[in-house]
Amino acid sequence: MVDVQNRNDERNIPLQKVGIKNLKYPIQVLDKVRKTQSTVATVNMYVNLPHHYKGTHMSRFIEVFDRHRANILMPEFLVMLRDVRIALEAERSFCELEFPYFIEKKAPVSGQPSMMEYTCRYIGEESEQDRQFFVGIDVPVGTVCPCSKEISARGAHNQRGTVRVTVQYDSFFWIEDVIETIESAASSGLYSLLKREDEKFVTEHAYDNPVFVEDVVRNVCVKLETENEFPWFSVEAENNESIHNHDAFAYVERGRRPNRTLFDASAL
Amino acid sequence: MVDVQNRNDERNIPLQKVGIKNLKYPIQVLDKVRKTQSTVATVNMYVNLPHHYKGTHMSRFIEVFDRHRANILMPEFLVMLRDVRIALEAERSFCELEFPYFIEKKAPVSGQPSMMEYTCRYIGEESEQDRQFFVGIDVPVGTVCPCSKEISARGAHNQRGTVRVTVQYDSFFWIEDVIETIESAASSGLYSLLKREDEKFVTEHAYDNPVFVEDVVRNVCVKLETENEFPWFSVEAENNESIHNHDAFAYVERGRRPNRTLFDASAL
Amino acid sequence: MVDVQNRNDERNIPLQKVGIKNLKYPIQVLDKVRKTQSTVATVNMYVNLPHHYKGTHMSRFIEVFDRHRANILMPEFLVMLRDVRIALEAERSFCELEFPYFIEKKAPVSGQPSMMEYTCRYIGEESEQDRQFFVGIDVPVGTVCPCSKEISARGAHNQRGTVRVTVQYDSFFWIEDVIETIESAASSGLYSLLKREDEKFVTEHAYDNPVFVEDVVRNVCVKLETENEFPWFSVEAENNESIHNHDAFAYVERGRRPNRTLFDASAL
Amino acid sequence: MVDVQNRNDERNIPLQKVGIKNLKYPIQVLDKVRKTQSTVATVNMYVNLPHHYKGTHMSRFIEVFDRHRANILMPEFLVMLRDVRIALEAERSFCELEFPYFIEKKAPVSGQPSMMEYTCRYIGEESEQDRQFFVGIDVPVGTVCPCSKEISARGAHNQRGTVRVTVQYDSFFWIEDVIETIESAASSGLYSLLKREDEKFVTEHAYDNPVFVEDVVRNVCVKLETENEFPWFSVEAENNESIHNHDAFAYVERGRRPNRTLFDASAL
Repeated sequence: MVDVQNRNDERNIPLQKVGIKNLKYPIQVLDKVRKTQSTVATVNMYVNLPHHYKGTHMSRFIEVFDRHRANILMPEFLVMLRDVRIALEAERSFCELEFPYFIEKKAPVSGQPSMMEYTCRYIGEESEQDRQFFVGIDVPVGTVCPCSKEISARGAHNQRGTVRVTVQYDSFFWIEDVIETIESAASSGLYSLLKREDEKFVTEHAYDNPVFVEDVVRNVCVKLETENEFPWFSVEAENNESIHNHDAFAYVERGRRPNRTLFDASAL
Repeated sequence: MVDVQNRNDERNIPLQKVGIKNLKYPIQVLDKVRKTQSTVATVNMYVNLPHHYKGTHMSRFIEVFDRHRANILMPEFLVMLRDVRIALEAERSFCELEFPYFIEKKAPVSGQPSMMEYTCRYIGEESEQDRQFFVGIDVPVGTVCPCSKEISARGAHNQRGTVRVTVQYDSFFWIEDVIETIESAASSGLYSLLKREDEKFVTEHAYDNPVFVEDVVRNVCVKLETENEFPWFSVEAENNESIHNHDAFAYVERGRRPNRTLFDASAL
Repeated sequence: MVDVQNRNDERNIPLQKVGIKNLKYPIQVLDKVRKTQSTVATVNMYVNLPHHYKGTHMSRFIEVFDRHRANILMPEFLVMLRDVRIALEAERSFCELEFPYFIEKKAPVSGQPSMMEYTCRYIGEESEQDRQFFVGIDVPVGTVCPCSKEISARGAHNQRGTVRVTVQYDSFFWIEDVIETIESAASSGLYSLLKREDEKFVTEHAYDNPVFVEDVVRNVCVKLETENEFPWFSVEAENNESIHNHDAFAYVERGRRPNRTLFDASAL
Repeated sequence: MVDVQNRNDERNIPLQKVGIKNLKYPIQVLDKVRKTQSTVATVNMYVNLPHHYKGTHMSRFIEVFDRHRANILMPEFLVMLRDVRIALEAERSFCELEFPYFIEKKAPVSGQPSMMEYTCRYIGEESEQDRQFFVGIDVPVGTVCPCSKEISARGAHNQRGTVRVTVQYDSFFWIEDVIETIESAASSGLYSLLKREDEKFVTEHAYDNPVFVEDVVRNVCVKLETENEFPWFSVEAENNESIHNHDAFAYVERGRRPNRTLFDASAL
C-alpha cells in the first residue's frame, strides 16, 4: 500500500512539532505510600519533521505510549521519549502528560481520612544531544487577604486558589513533598472532609496566616530554594477572589532558564 | 438536486428534537440603561421530526435566527420560535440561548464605576397549542459561612459562588432587578473594581451577613415570591468552598411545575 | 461545639436538593474483561432538606462515599444512595457520578490493540418508597453525511460525533454491550490506533454506511428496543460537522417517562 | 487607611508578573467592513513587581482598561500597555486579550450571507526600552486526509480542525486578510449557513484538495511569507480526526525568535 506520508515534500519547510493531542489513556504512576497509583492521563506527543518528509506516522506514537503506560515513573518518561524519537525516525521528540493524582489526607484535628486530588504534569523533550524534563503540580489552597484583614474592623475576605509549580527535573523527588511545601506556603491547605472541630482549626489557622497571591509565590520560592536543588523552577498562584469575579495572579521563576526548544512559541 | 432529508423513513420512530447546537452568533438584547446591548450568544435550536421524515433542513435554523439576531427581546423570542417552527414545517420548536450580559456597577463607597458580567439564558418551546418561555440568570456572589464564623475565635471562611435563577416568563421584567434581588440575598455582591475603602466595606458587610448555600436559595426564594409573580421558578446556589476543593450546592423550585415537553429527559 | 446547621429555620421553605458538587474521587468499577477497573469520578451528591432545618452536614456525604468508592457496581450504587439518605437523616437522596471508562479495542484489520476511552454516568435517587437508577454512556463515533454523498460527484463530508445513551436500570447489563450497539449504529466506531490497512477499511466502511444524526439515534433506538428491555431510555447524537463550526443534534426517548423528582427542573 | 501592598518586603524576591486574570469585559475593536465591532473580551493584565514591594494595586488595572475598552485597535493596545505600566509604577507591563470576532460570510454558490465566528488574541508586553505585540487568530477549517483518499477505493475521512496563527505585529494589517489566507490553505473553509448547492461545492472542493495537518501549516507558512512581512510568526493546526478520538497536530514557527520576557516559562 502506498506510503503517502513518506513522499518527498517540495516546500522546503521543516516542522518543529508534528504529532497527536488530547489522547486519553489509563496509566500507572509511582505513589509514595501505595507504591503505584492507577489514574487517567491526557497525552500530547510530538516529533520534529524534516523539510523533505510530507508527513509523520501518527499510529506509532500510540504504539510506543501503550508499551510504557503501566510504568510512567519520572526516569521511565525519558526512556519513553527516546523510544518515540526512534520509532518516528526523528531528531527530537516531545511529550506533555497531565493526570489527576490522589493522596489520602487526614483532617487536621479529627484525623479523619479522605482522598484529595492534585493535578500533575510531566513535560519533556529529548534528542541525541540533550534532554529536558519538567514536572508540574497544581495544588488548590485557601488564602486570606492581608489587606482586607488589616483595614476591616472584623472578618477578612478569603478564597480558593491554585498554586502551580513547575520544576526542572534533575534527580528523583516525591510529588508529595512538593505538595506539602506549597500547602504550607498558603493561608491553608484544602481538604475533602472536615468535621466541625477541623473547620474551626482551618478557619483560625488561615486567619492567622494571611497571604497575598504575591506572598504565596514568594513563600513557595524560598522553600523550594532551601529544601531542593532544582536547576530551574517557576511558581504561579491564581486566587479566585471572593470579592471580584476575576482572579488575582502572581508568577515568579528562578534559576538558569532552560533552553527548551520552541518552548516559548507555544506560550502564545 | 435530490432532497435526501425529505425522503420517507421506514423505522417509524418520531424524534422529539432535531436541530443545531453550539452556534456562536452576535446578538442585540434589551438594556435597561442603554436601550440595547451588543453581545455574543451560544445558540441551540431544535424542532420535532415526524416519523415519516428522514431528516430536517438544518440551514433554515440559521436563516431564521439571522433575521432576528438584532432584536432578541423577551417578547420577540417567542416570535422567533414560531418562525423556526413554520420554516421547518414542524409541530414544535425549541431554543436555548446563552449570552454574557454587562451592567455598569458602582463601587459601594468610592462610587467608582466598572462593568460587571452576568450570564443570561433564554429557554423556550413553542407549538400552535402552547408556548413556554424561561429566563435564566447566573449571578456571582460572595458568601461567609455562618458555622465557621460562630465556632471560630476569629475570622470565617468565605468564598465566591454562583446563584442561578430560572423563572417562567409571564409578563415583562428587567433582568437588572432580579440580579439586585439575588445579590442582596448573599453575604455580598461582587465587583470588578474596588478601592481600599470599598474593600473594607464589602469585607465587613459580608462578615455581618453570613449565609449558608441553603440560606442563599431560601432568601432569593422569599424575595422572588413577594416581589414578583412568576408562575414557576427555580433557584440554585453553588459555593466554591475556600476550605474544600469541591463545591456546596442547594436547589429549590416553587410554583406549578411547567409541563415543558421532554424537559426532564435532557436533564440526565 | 454549637451545631448551627441543626438550628430551626423560620422561612418555611423545604429544599429539594442540598449537597456537594464536583468532588473528584478515585473509584473502582466493574470491568467485563478485567474484573475491576480503577478510574477517576466526578461526584455530585444531594439530599432533600425539610423546611425546619437550617442546613445539612456536608462532611457526611464524603464519609459515606469514601466507604463505597472501591466497589461502585450498579447494584452497590443504590446501597450507597440509601446510606447517604440515612446518614443525612433525609427522606430522599440523589447522586450523579461521571467517570472515564477504558476498553481495549483491536484495530479492524491489523488487529492491533489499544485503549479506547468512553464516558460513563450513574444517576440515581432513592427514598424509602421508591428508587430510580439511570446509566449514561457517551460513545465517540464517525458519521458520513448521506446528503453530501448523494449530491456530490465525489467524496462526502464526514466528522467525529458523540452519541449519548441514557437507560433506566432494571436488571444488570454490560456497558461494553451497549457501546457495541452504539458503534454499529453510526458510520463507524473510532480507534486510538489504526495502521494503514485499518484506515482503508474504516474509510470505505464509513463511506458505505452514511447516516444523518437523525439516523444514528433511530438506529440505536431500534437496536436497544430489540436487544434489551429498558423501561425507559433516551438517545442523543451530536455531530461536529466538518463543513460548519456548529454541531448537528438529534434526540429521542422511548418508554414510560420515569417520574424522577425534580429531574426536569435541573434541565434548565 | 494603611497601604499594606506598599509595605517593604524582606524576602528579596522580585516577581516577573503580578496582576489580574480572567476578567470578562465588553470591548470595541476595528472592523474592516463595519468600522467597529462590539464584542466580549477575556483579559489578563500583569506588571513586574520589584523585590522591595509587598504587593501591587489590582484595582488600577481595571481603571486603565476601562478607559481603553471602547477603542481596542492594534496601535491603541500598546498605548494601553504603557498606561498600565505607568499607573502601576512598574518597569514592565503585560496583557493578553481574547475575544470572538464575527465576519459576515457568503455561501460559495447560493451567496447566502451568515455570521461566522473567529477567535482573536492580542498579546503584548511593554517597557520603556522595548515593546512586543502579537496578534493571534484561530480559524476553524475542514481537512480531507490525503492518505485515506489515496489508499481507499472510495471516500476519504475528513474532519473539522482549527488553525492558530500568531504573528508579531510590525505594521497594521487586517485580520480578515489573514483569515482568508488560512482558509485557502486547508481543504475548505467552514460556514454557518450552506444550502444544498453549497454543500455539494464544499464537499467536492474539499475532496479535490486533501491536506495533512502538516500540509496546512506549511501552506499557511508559504502564503504568510510571500504576502506579508511579519518579523516572526507561528502556525499550528489541530485536526479533530473523524477516525480517532484524539487530535492530529502540527506546529511551525518562522523568523527571528522574539525576545519576549518569560514568554517561555508560561508555556509549561
